Amino acid sequence: MSENIKGLKRNYYCGELREANIGEEVTLMGWVAKERNLGSIVFVDLRDRTGISQIVFDDTVDAELFKKAEKLRSEFVIAIVGAVRERSSINEKIPTGKIEILAKELRILSESEVPPIYIKDDDNVAENMRLKYRTLDLRKPFMQNNLMVRSKFYKVTRDFFYNEGFMEIETPMLSKPTPEGARDYLVPSRVNEGKFYALPQSPQLLKQLLMVSGMDKYFQITKCFRDEDLRANRQPEFTQIDLEMSFVDIEDVIEVNERFLKYAFKEILNVDIDLPIQRMKYSEAMDRFGVDKPDLRFELELVDVTEIVKDSGFKVFESASVKGSSIRGINIKNGASFYSRKAVGKLEDFVKTYGAKGLAWIKITDEGINSPIAKFLSEDVINGIIKEMRGELGDLLVFVADKNNIVYDSLGNLRNHIAKDMDLISKDDYKLLWITEFPLFEYDEDEGRYVAKHHPFTSPMKEDLEYLETQPEIVRAKAYDIVINGDEMGGGSIRINNPAIQNRMFKALGFSEEEAEEKFGFLLEAFKYGAPPHGGLAYGLDRLIMLFTDSENIRDVIAFPKTQSATDLLTGAPVELSEEQLEEVHIKVIE
Amino acid sequence: MSENIKGLKRNYYCGELREANIGEEVTLMGWVAKERNLGSIVFVDLRDRTGISQIVFDDTVDAELFKKAEKLRSEFVIAIVGAVRERSSINEKIPTGKIEILAKELRILSESEVPPIYIKDDDNVAENMRLKYRTLDLRKPFMQNNLMVRSKFYKVTRDFFYNEGFMEIETPMLSKPTPEGARDYLVPSRVNEGKFYALPQSPQLLKQLLMVSGMDKYFQITKCFRDEDLRANRQPEFTQIDLEMSFVDIEDVIEVNERFLKYAFKEILNVDIDLPIQRMKYSEAMDRFGVDKPDLRFELELVDVTEIVKDSGFKVFESASVKGSSIRGINIKNGASFYSRKAVGKLEDFVKTYGAKGLAWIKITDEGINSPIAKFLSEDVINGIIKEMRGELGDLLVFVADKNNIVYDSLGNLRNHIAKDMDLISKDDYKLLWITEFPLFEYDEDEGRYVAKHHPFTSPMKEDLEYLETQPEIVRAKAYDIVINGDEMGGGSIRINNPAIQNRMFKALGFSEEEAEEKFGFLLEAFKYGAPPHGGLAYGLDRLIMLFTDSENIRDVIAFPKTQSATDLLTGAPVELSEEQLEEVHIKVIE
Repeated sequence: MSENIKGLKRNYYCGELREANIGEEVTLMGWVAKERNLGSIVFVDLRDRTGISQIVFDDTVDAELFKKAEKLRSEFVIAIVGAVRERSSINEKIPTGKIEILAKELRILSESEVPPIYIKDDDNVAENMRLKYRTLDLRKPFMQNNLMVRSKFYKVTRDFFYNEGFMEIETPMLSKPTPEGARDYLVPSRVNEGKFYALPQSPQLLKQLLMVSGMDKYFQITKCFRDEDLRANRQPEFTQIDLEMSFVDIEDVIEVNERFLKYAFKEILNVDIDLPIQRMKYSEAMDRFGVDKPDLRFELELVDVTEIVKDSGFKVFESASVKGSSIRGINIKNGASFYSRKAVGKLEDFVKTYGAKGLAWIKITDEGINSPIAKFLSEDVINGIIKEMRGELGDLLVFVADKNNIVYDSLGNLRNHIAKDMDLISKDDYKLLWITEFPLFEYDEDEGRYVAKHHPFTSPMKEDLEYLETQPEIVRAKAYDIVINGDEMGGGSIRINNPAIQNRMFKALGFSEEEAEEKFGFLLEAFKYGAPPHGGLAYGLDRLIMLFTDSENIRDVIAFPKTQSATDLLTGAPVELSEEQLEEVHIKVIE
Repeated sequence: MSENIKGLKRNYYCGELREANIGEEVTLMGWVAKERNLGSIVFVDLRDRTGISQIVFDDTVDAELFKKAEKLRSEFVIAIVGAVRERSSINEKIPTGKIEILAKELRILSESEVPPIYIKDDDNVAENMRLKYRTLDLRKPFMQNNLMVRSKFYKVTRDFFYNEGFMEIETPMLSKPTPEGARDYLVPSRVNEGKFYALPQSPQLLKQLLMVSGMDKYFQITKCFRDEDLRANRQPEFTQIDLEMSFVDIEDVIEVNERFLKYAFKEILNVDIDLPIQRMKYSEAMDRFGVDKPDLRFELELVDVTEIVKDSGFKVFESASVKGSSIRGINIKNGASFYSRKAVGKLEDFVKTYGAKGLAWIKITDEGINSPIAKFLSEDVINGIIKEMRGELGDLLVFVADKNNIVYDSLGNLRNHIAKDMDLISKDDYKLLWITEFPLFEYDEDEGRYVAKHHPFTSPMKEDLEYLETQPEIVRAKAYDIVINGDEMGGGSIRINNPAIQNRMFKALGFSEEEAEEKFGFLLEAFKYGAPPHGGLAYGLDRLIMLFTDSENIRDVIAFPKTQSATDLLTGAPVELSEEQLEEVHIKVIE
């Protein structure tokens, strides 16, 4: 049996009541978070998205009402009318802890069976249970808070860009399959037999066309889709803040986005970000940190010791002293005692997952140098290394000697690993960084050709244009990423707006004219009729919310996420369909 | 050859300059809308999304600059630096018509070939050309205005609902196929072989689950998808303002939405809407207007004359005097001379498209009654009809005798048709109307069972609950539509939050327990653990923008729309894909 709310009007949320409300008659509605029946008195914690209020049914209330109160169980939905009064045993932990409501009326709006998971933040239930019972999981205060932060961030973002003169424009979900990208999600057409739409990987081309159409400034918060194997913190559909501006160069895009970030950090976290945000060239980031998204909250920089060790006679080092390879190390301050020999072995296992053949190390201890490689190196060389790396008593120096990409990858990741190990990261520290001057191309071993590092519409830097055909590997792009605390939160570029350069770019990517026409013909066609200089940026919204809510799991910032195998445990999607249903869209399943 | 903007900083938009700016040096960027070379002077109209400014190159400018100006052609993208001065021949038609800019510097940022369509509002080019060259079409001032209104409306909507405490929450695009709805767009899964997602027809179930999860108030502006044959002003993907509230009944949902509509009309159109908005029961709307979305900007109400004519002896009328049929008419004031006999014949053709067998008519003229049916009716009956319909000299009375649904459908549509014909509709008039108390079910002849008129989660009215099993046809729903100027702009309902009633509803729809479980199991499961009373509403955003921009074509309010055969003429989507690409998602095309 369930009652209705007829005649009742909720006048407060459960988390709002304070001492100032004492004496007021209030009507609250929510879920029973907890009930305690002490025989002559029943206490109920009533919960809504704002918090909890304590409701009391004592021996002064009507007998029938008391009997009804005794029926209440966890997660019953109820409405309460009663008077706010001072609480005898104050609960300092909650904002409503100084008051309680003496019930005068109770309606049971909906009953509940015993829920399969507890509704509390620290319920250590398996994640698949949380996803299956998502409706209950979303009742947890931290999940409600995450979604509230997300909701506020949408507002903050849109307010900012709208006020800056950006037009919000929707681009289609049923779009053209993407050449030169990740794998598309496909949608068969019923009307156009045998043809397919793709869900957008990003509105990249369409936002550029909006600039060509004179919209001047565009933004959109939109879903994007990539059918890739899901790593941790990847979702098949994710949300992007997408923007594009006309008549701009790098500085203009960076300027407005710095003000946006400052505004967002202030509004969401009440944190002041100093402008301008630090900038670093891609080459410097790789050199100093081994990655293009360095976490600047801690040091542990890479040091190149190739010159020092190249003639040491130690084969491992000598063979890495050739062009394209190097020997680099990290000085782990005070690491000598933190990392036992066994623990250093684990660091070595870690770098091996990135392709390194091993991890050389030197401990600077009270008893002198402790190092398995010491016997291969002269004292001069060892001292040279220590000097270059500013080694001091108690430090642990670790080295990888390999091809540069392996050195960077292994030490860059090791750096983050050590910082976590040694607890070097302060939670409330936010380090923002622009990475600039990315390479325009990267060589794709599988395809045996250069591919665009960002996408084929990224403008080369003017000073490198002459090398587009002859030395594509040294051409830098007018591209920029925004990195926060070691995560890439967004990236963008100035685009090519000159059809002649766009054609040179396609050629450099190895496309024939026909291929370019087939893949991007509609873009090239549009560019014939006056394309303004333009550029933009896209943020990963889910990642920003993870940052703002200090979440480690992307599924904790999305209401209805998918598992790593791209299933929705709540609804059971995806599902099998009948042959008839598939025939309507002219397809069948193959084994 | 194209130049860049280095060193220039745009300081005004083209449409912003006024007499107050005379004497200022300005930097403008935009497209050449028009150029006139008078030999010793070149005029250029420079366009951006805000409007046009006239640029002048006269004999006082540098010779090289003049030569460059002579090269300008329509749709070249240029940057201009110059001084604002008074214009000698004032153009009163445009806001910048009192000034012009004497150029000092010109950069050609991008050239243009001769565009295939004209960039002007009244370019009467075929729509497929507009869609193919959408980038150029979007340069037209009216299209830019439409998208600007749309952009502003997003902002207005989100501001309103956010400030009312609604949380913006995204629901997934890759979702579960919908039972009991329109046809889904399907997405094959790569990871889950042989299984499919569907694009959402609406977030209906998920927004209800958000209420069950305690989010209290939810809204979202989101894309929805229906793979139906496209009629005019339908798109395969469309945009919905979706909202849901907890602990509410009809009045609460209506109240907040009335304030929203008032706010939106004021912000977008500067029109004041009086609250409360008029309400009308479904049965009254059908009776008076023949449709459930009456246009109240004109009269032409339906009048039931069954009682008057049932014993007239006229067979056509008598056979429609049985239960479920009727004879109804419309008094077309002053229609006797407006509609010639031939024109009335066209009205008859019109009602025949809605299944009517014919259109009887009576003209009240100076020379008495003029009517082909007069000979079948007594003077008393004719006078009775005229009296009932308040016929006066000059009026044309028209009648349909048939089953009620045909009478309603044909006269309801005829009513709108006549109002357009006779120009009875004032453009700046906005008539808003709530339609309430819809039937819960409608009978589906094809399926031979009752189906939900809205959806299976709509709550029956309490007073009709007892008839759910015995007389489903008379059960009314807690449903409401908002109708503006004869278009349904949105609709919603209070939902069932009681699992027992939900099960009765499923039974009434003819679902076995197993079917209900299979189709909606995850919803029923969630409802076991405390579902609050809840209800909501969804608006068709595209239709609202059509209203706000006075557009007749839905494609004029969408940046990149599809044709009626669901193709995108700009990009060419959908396209054929290789067998390999389809194999990856375990499907093949069948003939």
